[in-house]
Amino acid sequence: MHPTPDQQPDEPQPEERWRIRRTRDDLDRLGETESVFALSNGWLGWRGTLDEGAPVEMPGSYLNGLHERRELTYPEDGYAFPQLSDTVISPPNATLVRLWVGDEPLDLRTGTVLAHEQVLDLRAGVIERLTEWVSPGGDGVRVRSTRLVSLARRRVAAVDWTVEPLDGPVDVRICADLLANEHVPERADDPRAASLIQDPLTAELHRVDGADALLVHRTERSEQRVAVAVAHRAAAPAQLTTDADATPDRVRLTLTGALGPGERVRLTKFAAFEWAPVDDSTVEELAAQVTAEADAARTDGFGELRTEQRAALDHAWRTADVLLDGDEELQLAIRFAMFHLIQAGRADGDRTIPAKGLTGNGYDGHVLWDTEGYVLPVLTYIAPAVARSALRWRHAHLTQAYDRAAELRLTGATFPWRTISGRECSGYWPAGTAALHVNADIADAVLRYVGATDDEEFRTGPGLDLLVATARLWQGFGHFTDDGSFHIAGVTGPDEYAALVDDNLFTNLMARRNLRGAADAAERHPEAAGRLGVDPAEVAGWRAAAEAMTMPYDPKRGVHQQSAGFTDRPEWNFADTGNDDYPLLLHFPYLELYRHQVVKQADLVLAMLRCPGEFTAEEKAANFAYYEARTVRDSSLSAAPQGVLAAELGHLDLAYDLFAESVLQDLEDLGDKTGDGLHLASLGGAWLALVQGFGGLRDDRELLSFDPRLPDRIDRLAFNLLWHGHRLHVTLTADEARYELPDADADVAIELWHHGERLRVTAGEATIRPMPPLPDSGPEPPSPPGRRPARR
Amino acid sequence: MHPTPDQQPDEPQPEERWRIRRTRDDLDRLGETESVFALSNGWLGWRGTLDEGAPVEMPGSYLNGLHERRELTYPEDGYAFPQLSDTVISPPNATLVRLWVGDEPLDLRTGTVLAHEQVLDLRAGVIERLTEWVSPGGDGVRVRSTRLVSLARRRVAAVDWTVEPLDGPVDVRICADLLANEHVPERADDPRAASLIQDPLTAELHRVDGADALLVHRTERSEQRVAVAVAHRAAAPAQLTTDADATPDRVRLTLTGALGPGERVRLTKFAAFEWAPVDDSTVEELAAQVTAEADAARTDGFGELRTEQRAALDHAWRTADVLLDGDEELQLAIRFAMFHLIQAGRADGDRTIPAKGLTGNGYDGHVLWDTEGYVLPVLTYIAPAVARSALRWRHAHLTQAYDRAAELRLTGATFPWRTISGRECSGYWPAGTAALHVNADIADAVLRYVGATDDEEFRTGPGLDLLVATARLWQGFGHFTDDGSFHIAGVTGPDEYAALVDDNLFTNLMARRNLRGAADAAERHPEAAGRLGVDPAEVAGWRAAAEAMTMPYDPKRGVHQQSAGFTDRPEWNFADTGNDDYPLLLHFPYLELYRHQVVKQADLVLAMLRCPGEFTAEEKAANFAYYEARTVRDSSLSAAPQGVLAAELGHLDLAYDLFAESVLQDLEDLGDKTGDGLHLASLGGAWLALVQGFGGLRDDRELLSFDPRLPDRIDRLAFNLLWHGHRLHVTLTADEARYELPDADADVAIELWHHGERLRVTAGEATIRPMPPLPDSGPEPPSPPGRRPARR
Repeated sequence: MHPTPDQQPDEPQPEERWRIRRTRDDLDRLGETESVFALSNGWLGWRGTLDEGAPVEMPGSYLNGLHERRELTYPEDGYAFPQLSDTVISPPNATLVRLWVGDEPLDLRTGTVLAHEQVLDLRAGVIERLTEWVSPGGDGVRVRSTRLVSLARRRVAAVDWTVEPLDGPVDVRICADLLANEHVPERADDPRAASLIQDPLTAELHRVDGADALLVHRTERSEQRVAVAVAHRAAAPAQLTTDADATPDRVRLTLTGALGPGERVRLTKFAAFEWAPVDDSTVEELAAQVTAEADAARTDGFGELRTEQRAALDHAWRTADVLLDGDEELQLAIRFAMFHLIQAGRADGDRTIPAKGLTGNGYDGHVLWDTEGYVLPVLTYIAPAVARSALRWRHAHLTQAYDRAAELRLTGATFPWRTISGRECSGYWPAGTAALHVNADIADAVLRYVGATDDEEFRTGPGLDLLVATARLWQGFGHFTDDGSFHIAGVTGPDEYAALVDDNLFTNLMARRNLRGAADAAERHPEAAGRLGVDPAEVAGWRAAAEAMTMPYDPKRGVHQQSAGFTDRPEWNFADTGNDDYPLLLHFPYLELYRHQVVKQADLVLAMLRCPGEFTAEEKAANFAYYEARTVRDSSLSAAPQGVLAAELGHLDLAYDLFAESVLQDLEDLGDKTGDGLHLASLGGAWLALVQGFGGLRDDRELLSFDPRLPDRIDRLAFNLLWHGHRLHVTLTADEARYELPDADADVAIELWHHGERLRVTAGEATIRPMPPLPDSGPEPPSPPGRRPARR
Repeated sequence: MHPTPDQQPDEPQPEERWRIRRTRDDLDRLGETESVFALSNGWLGWRGTLDEGAPVEMPGSYLNGLHERRELTYPEDGYAFPQLSDTVISPPNATLVRLWVGDEPLDLRTGTVLAHEQVLDLRAGVIERLTEWVSPGGDGVRVRSTRLVSLARRRVAAVDWTVEPLDGPVDVRICADLLANEHVPERADDPRAASLIQDPLTAELHRVDGADALLVHRTERSEQRVAVAVAHRAAAPAQLTTDADATPDRVRLTLTGALGPGERVRLTKFAAFEWAPVDDSTVEELAAQVTAEADAARTDGFGELRTEQRAALDHAWRTADVLLDGDEELQLAIRFAMFHLIQAGRADGDRTIPAKGLTGNGYDGHVLWDTEGYVLPVLTYIAPAVARSALRWRHAHLTQAYDRAAELRLTGATFPWRTISGRECSGYWPAGTAALHVNADIADAVLRYVGATDDEEFRTGPGLDLLVATARLWQGFGHFTDDGSFHIAGVTGPDEYAALVDDNLFTNLMARRNLRGAADAAERHPEAAGRLGVDPAEVAGWRAAAEAMTMPYDPKRGVHQQSAGFTDRPEWNFADTGNDDYPLLLHFPYLELYRHQVVKQADLVLAMLRCPGEFTAEEKAANFAYYEARTVRDSSLSAAPQGVLAAELGHLDLAYDLFAESVLQDLEDLGDKTGDGLHLASLGGAWLALVQGFGGLRDDRELLSFDPRLPDRIDRLAFNLLWHGHRLHVTLTADEARYELPDADADVAIELWHHGERLRVTAGEATIRPMPPLPDSGPEPPSPPGRRPARR
């Protein structure tokens, strides 16, 4: 309620509001730290492993698109069951700087850790590490490192590492490794864990030449080639000797000798990565590329890389930053979330963002609907070029989607439920292939991007292609019944505790949006549509299907049905479900989950968020209360949309706690899965929970619409949106909402809705409106027993 | 219409009405012949392979219960997905008598086949084989053999084999092999094929002692031990030498020498088999058992085995035979079917009948609901002790079924969808675990058996246990809705082109029968029920659920729904479905099949057969027409029940053609799957199509009920039923129905219904009633385009 002076927007913040810190007390949650400290530029990702490579829970570097294939085998096979699946693999690991002190390797599980800290600096985009360690032999050293994955140079990452004696002289051996086919530990028996391929890389070239190291490998089945070069710079006392050696899977630079007090070794590794299809580049071509990149980075120096990094982040934060006054922990957490969203994507090329970004191998590194459903709705407003790139990636795989639809004997295109290469990789079709809503999610993301930008090339090109292809799917898949209504039967919606249902409300409404969006686009661009064979009759068919779309409703209970008949299903026996029974999917068969009224994740509630105009306020309130009582949030995709609707309906404490659950999902490892990689959808959801929840943003109409309302816990909430190229800055307090165009030329204006009032926001002056009083929303709807989010 | 004199019941029939014959013209359908000529005694089965072992499509011997386990792996695992599956394996092959003529092995693919014939004699229970062959070297031989699997001696089978020169002298080498771990060829890529384990047996003992051979092996994972002994008897000219040798996987007796014109070698192999859990019998114990059995068989001689075989079959045929005058081909076919039903089961022990009997490794040798649904409804009336044995086998696995229900977090017991050992082996749960109707099918078979016999021990013991355990499943699984109706949600019915549906009508009605049957039994035997913890409140709960059971109905179309909402689903696009698109499951994804109104196999139609009192005649007619048009019969389980209903509704030509399809399923390999083993359900279904279809038998009430009506194609139909120990002989012609008790004592009488009239059939005189005129049933309801059964 009382903003302190240092919390003005665009003013410098205290450093600690930008830093994630882990110390020796956190060494028992190493896997989680590796994910939280992962660095990425949307193409190249490094997990936040220790420089010395051990202890480690899951080593991992990732290049967007680099993968191997593995066979899927089924106890009982079926027609069009995918026979191959993509699995993310790691290129050679260039992070490693191993240290021996006397005879002992630096290993924080041994000796004495006097100090240990890793700091992720969200503005600098680096990890600073400081360790003071006394070996079991009694030798003390201080190790520092700074690591970055360059946002400015796609292929480049670097480690700047030093060691010095703590007091007396020490013998050191320093091994800077570039290591291929590093062993990846098997994870516990969990259906959601990754499927590992050991030794996926076949060596093609290994070379060491002074301080320059190179490895080129290829994969066998996906036929990809990957090259990594490391250019070293070493500053060491003269008495140290340097050696280098190379084997097919490892190149190593070794410095050996004694360090006296006050002496130190600084070793900087400049690594460059590239991969390409085997047929597209020769070994030497790829080798030359990465060698030149690494060399250029070394020439420019680590300081220059840091400067570039800061500049890139300053630019990104200008739009991405969110101010959340009143809760220091969540202020830092939302910045952490935004940092990972910034570094998950890239504007160049046709690239998408896997569900875990490039932070871990969870879900086999696959792209799921998380991207279009939870990440692009954020990026569209803070980095639209990145959203464009991700949608162009879908478009680049449109032919595969048409082919898949033909294989399934469907019309139009069917995008994969999970994939890296564009092929369908789902091995459990009721929750994969049957989840056709992914196609509408893609269309929804197209419509949002097109609505928020002036990108005519995309609108009339890839965007139109995607809208038409997906509309054709629904038109052929759905059917009219005798009463003239249109139905979509036998699909699976977002809620994975139901499957193969009829008229899933989310799917139906999203398909309606898809059909209408395609019809609008085709009519707006008849020539482009004509090239796709779209004629007025087809458009009329889309409109007819959209208008007749069924919204299952239970008049007796006065609520919509998640799917036809849902509310007639038996209730879940929460009384006999223990706290240890969650997540339910690990303790109950699908047979039980599917037939009960138990909801894994927001489904109908998500429909009310995506298609808000389809429901009255009373319907939303009734639906929310009904489904809140049956939603167990066993998915990290759930808290955010529930939080948005809770906010809309005035249950602001619940909304705030749901926001907290979403934003802390990984920082506090709430699902015990962060070690597999970050939940980008949950991090994106955190922004949505704030901006759509407390900001009340809705974007389903021509203009942006805000219905802001703040919970007591937030003194001030400020965020930015890029709207047709202009940065709209929104500041909310308990008393007022302020809309500004801080960067715009004088003649720029943006129209928007604020609590039903149409505003015109002009450059140069803030448009300010009072916050209306909160309506009485009644008591908070109960969550399932024991499943309310933690109260803050 | 005009029975010829030789067609009187109980009169000898011409031999050819009892013989299945295959000649050299059939050598291109070897796999099918191997199944059709399979011999079995319900415990030991031998496929009808050639004595010389090659050519062969799928070698196989089977011992009821002998299996190995294999791991099931899932691309995406789930809670309670079975991790191990049973797979049938073969004991050592004792059928082999290999012959070399000069340097050439007898192989019908080489040389010149002058004559070749295999004859399955359905009354003698043997296969007679005669081959005249000229080797590529020009040497002619005549080979004869007779093979039997003893119905009188569970463990014993024998081959009586001779060779003689056709004209000039020939050098012969005869190898009588006992061969373990014979290679089993992989079958084509079909989700329905078997999962093979090569080399499943580990050698424990091999021995040859003069003319006595022995192998003992064990399995690794299922921990079973199997022993096979062969006692040889050889009659050969003195100039032939005899050798024997043994290796861990093969024991061989070899006769070598020259045979002059008029000379011959006769070699008889008496084989004995036994298996036991490794912990239950030592190697030597098992070896001693089989050695003694084989030796005893040799001592008694092949002629004695034949005599016993004939006696056993004479006894069986007395009840099992069906006379079908007017269609010689189908007369033979129904006898073929009955022969395989006779030899599929055994009355001793707790033994069941796998879906393929012991005739092939299809479905991995698993037992499915085929047994209770299609085989026991026949055996209950022609061999009730065999039905009892199969139901006792279920009872022997009741503890596993209770445990499985607990794992699934269900009440009561859940029997496996497919199994050998009693564990659930289904690797695709939507069509396995979810097909809970198997439990009601077992209960239905219990009720039928109990109703047809005076078996008090079973009725108050295993029968009651099974009824209570399954009733408890339904009571807990189903749920009441606010309107007081009882529902069963999220299960899969018989139709495998639908899954995870609500209120599958078949499942609901069978569950109702199960609940009522359990309630009746508990009330009739309160003391026995009390020991199971059943009290009047529980019984009242069963009755309440049964009375409130939902029967989904579409008033607009005037038909019942196969499951809730079924008739609102989109219609299948038959116009664009080609003949090559069948079976649909090989050409369309489940995604498409499940959501359309396309039916793989009788489901609602089967419900009308099993629970005839639940429907009015008008409902049956409307339902039959509606579902006939949408049922593609991609399952061999479909034709028979469709045929029964077609007969009931007066569509007698259609009924006859459906009967023909069922009875010829294997003899003509209509599904191209006979090579994997016979479809016992289809063979059982053939009897049902005749007796329930044209005989109009219904057994859902206290008394048997007949509504006979004959198609033009049948001049006379005669069959037998055992009813409380008395053989009821029924003879139907176009004019009259004749009911007799040919074997009964004078004071015996049976009451039954004939076309609604209650009759009392007494011993010593036939009760004769005229056949009523056929009502006008209107035009035949159309089948899907191209899917009407072939017209005869």
